[in-house]
Amino acid sequence: MVTIKEIAEKLGIAISTVSKGLNGASDISEELRQMILDTAIEMGYRSKRMKKDENKKLCIFIENMDYESSNQFGYEIILGFKQSAIRDNWEVTVVPVNSILQNSEKYDTYMLKNGYSGGFLVGFALHDEWMHQMKKTKMPTVLFDNYIQRNPNVGYVGTDNYEGIEMAVDYAYKLGHRKIAFLNGSPDSMVSDQRYQAFMDSMAHHNLEVPKSMVAFGYYVSDCAKYHVPGFLTEGATAILCGNDLIASGVISECIFRGYKVPEDISVIGFDDIPISTHLNPPLTTVRQDRVELGMCGYLSLISLIRNVSVCKTLLRPKLIKRESTSKCTGPLIILPSEEKKVRVSANKKL
Amino acid sequence: MVTIKEIAEKLGIAISTVSKGLNGASDISEELRQMILDTAIEMGYRSKRMKKDENKKLCIFIENMDYESSNQFGYEIILGFKQSAIRDNWEVTVVPVNSILQNSEKYDTYMLKNGYSGGFLVGFALHDEWMHQMKKTKMPTVLFDNYIQRNPNVGYVGTDNYEGIEMAVDYAYKLGHRKIAFLNGSPDSMVSDQRYQAFMDSMAHHNLEVPKSMVAFGYYVSDCAKYHVPGFLTEGATAILCGNDLIASGVISECIFRGYKVPEDISVIGFDDIPISTHLNPPLTTVRQDRVELGMCGYLSLISLIRNVSVCKTLLRPKLIKRESTSKCTGPLIILPSEEKKVRVSANKKL
Repeated sequence: MVTIKEIAEKLGIAISTVSKGLNGASDISEELRQMILDTAIEMGYRSKRMKKDENKKLCIFIENMDYESSNQFGYEIILGFKQSAIRDNWEVTVVPVNSILQNSEKYDTYMLKNGYSGGFLVGFALHDEWMHQMKKTKMPTVLFDNYIQRNPNVGYVGTDNYEGIEMAVDYAYKLGHRKIAFLNGSPDSMVSDQRYQAFMDSMAHHNLEVPKSMVAFGYYVSDCAKYHVPGFLTEGATAILCGNDLIASGVISECIFRGYKVPEDISVIGFDDIPISTHLNPPLTTVRQDRVELGMCGYLSLISLIRNVSVCKTLLRPKLIKRESTSKCTGPLIILPSEEKKVRVSANKKL
Repeated sequence: MVTIKEIAEKLGIAISTVSKGLNGASDISEELRQMILDTAIEMGYRSKRMKKDENKKLCIFIENMDYESSNQFGYEIILGFKQSAIRDNWEVTVVPVNSILQNSEKYDTYMLKNGYSGGFLVGFALHDEWMHQMKKTKMPTVLFDNYIQRNPNVGYVGTDNYEGIEMAVDYAYKLGHRKIAFLNGSPDSMVSDQRYQAFMDSMAHHNLEVPKSMVAFGYYVSDCAKYHVPGFLTEGATAILCGNDLIASGVISECIFRGYKVPEDISVIGFDDIPISTHLNPPLTTVRQDRVELGMCGYLSLISLIRNVSVCKTLLRPKLIKRESTSKCTGPLIILPSEEKKVRVSANKKL
């Protein structure tokens, strides 16, 4: 490694002058400073500050979430994080994670070995091995949509799911719907628990009963609709809330497949507002999570933790986006399973 | 107005160094520059550059909270906010508010008239006129310890009160206390509600019953202790949690006045960790809210709102600070009101 002395010898000037040039002191001329810098770089010199910059590395770990194309949920989260981090000269690496990696190496070891100052974990499930390690990690880490109690090194960033579901229920209620079903996302997820609680509370707030058969946990894929929608329809649902937009797209298909019109017979509300929402037929009413902002907040929280400001929770407002998959309730529907035939019943007639 | 010379004298460094720090010269270390900036802000210095950016103005409104001396709760919140804001060249004004101002002028009008881009509201109560206006305000505003639903222009910054109370209850439990009383802060306060809920949940988590007589709402003054502590003692409390450190200081005095020793007979736990906590006799075990960090987060949230990133909630981790006002439970005490005399009962003897 090249030393300041070698640079001084090459230029025939004092070591202290080289030092001034490298540190940007104001009492040497700009020309001299430039010459010193050029020579230093040519000789392969790396200052302490430059070495420090090399350690300015953050890592985004992503699991169970698509992010590589712009219409996928994770894409803009990563974009927002990177855009903010790059402005402060952080280098950001994205590492897809599976259970093999999590079981073969401890999180803290992986971070130290690779020289990362902090991590942003996106899409992890509560039972994941690295999530267990979050209780004790010493590494500044921000979790998207997961919360760890009492560890000051770990923060949580997400959308206010409670308020999002409340807004969706209120909107359906305002449109006259009383039989509202909820096809939630995966179980074993903090987000699904929050949304379930919000749904039950909001329905109770409007004095609406929720039979067990009107709530189900699915998975974040459109395919889960076919297992749950028939039951909702039999139960007389006139509106279906969904855990995300993919589920909602499955719900719309399933309703149409069974002879129901959306939104004339059944209103459908999604969650997330991913790009496909506008292209569905009909375009989807949904609760928007601003993913670029989530990524930005993920970065800001991580930087706070790195600077020993122990932010534990940062939530963004959701926003209800009204499109054509919802309309005024014209009356509850019942389907007779034996006949697979729908019968419209007057809204004020007791079933 | 504070001069550069006064800052130099306070820090014991040359005037030219202070000048370099304030002007962002590169030949002083980042740490020194930061110290100069922080001290300048603390002393109330305003540079020409700050004065020039006349449109970059933020306002901190403060009510029901002391902040002018460094041992008061509000002092460091304002300091943390100002220190962060000044780095981005914002001018910050602190305006004490009362109900006369709130009723004579609308919040949004006041902000526009005075050219503020955003407000930070500290110490307001739920029933305040300006709090009602928060539901509809168009002005980016951050509330310390208050939450407004559904308005994307308003954010909430605070400590995770729930986790703080949980930590306090867990600690008392670990010390062997089973009869734990809670002298909460003011009613009509979101924070008191959160802490009440956390207390009830934590006690239930440990299978401990909470008779109604063991929980009370006081006010954030030491004086409230004398109205509630006698009842707690009669009930056999061996530990008392308090809504803040002032209440805790009153509780300690009241216990001692009634012939109880702290912590030998009664453990006392405060909340906040204001500077007096270390000077109480005995020094107070308490849940720390880092007020400088709260101020910093208040600023960061406000800047996010101004930039249309609708952060609605930012919570900081509390920290349990263990001092001498708590100790192992040696057995429940009962006081016979008729005799005003205390009787120690063996811990495993049923009362």
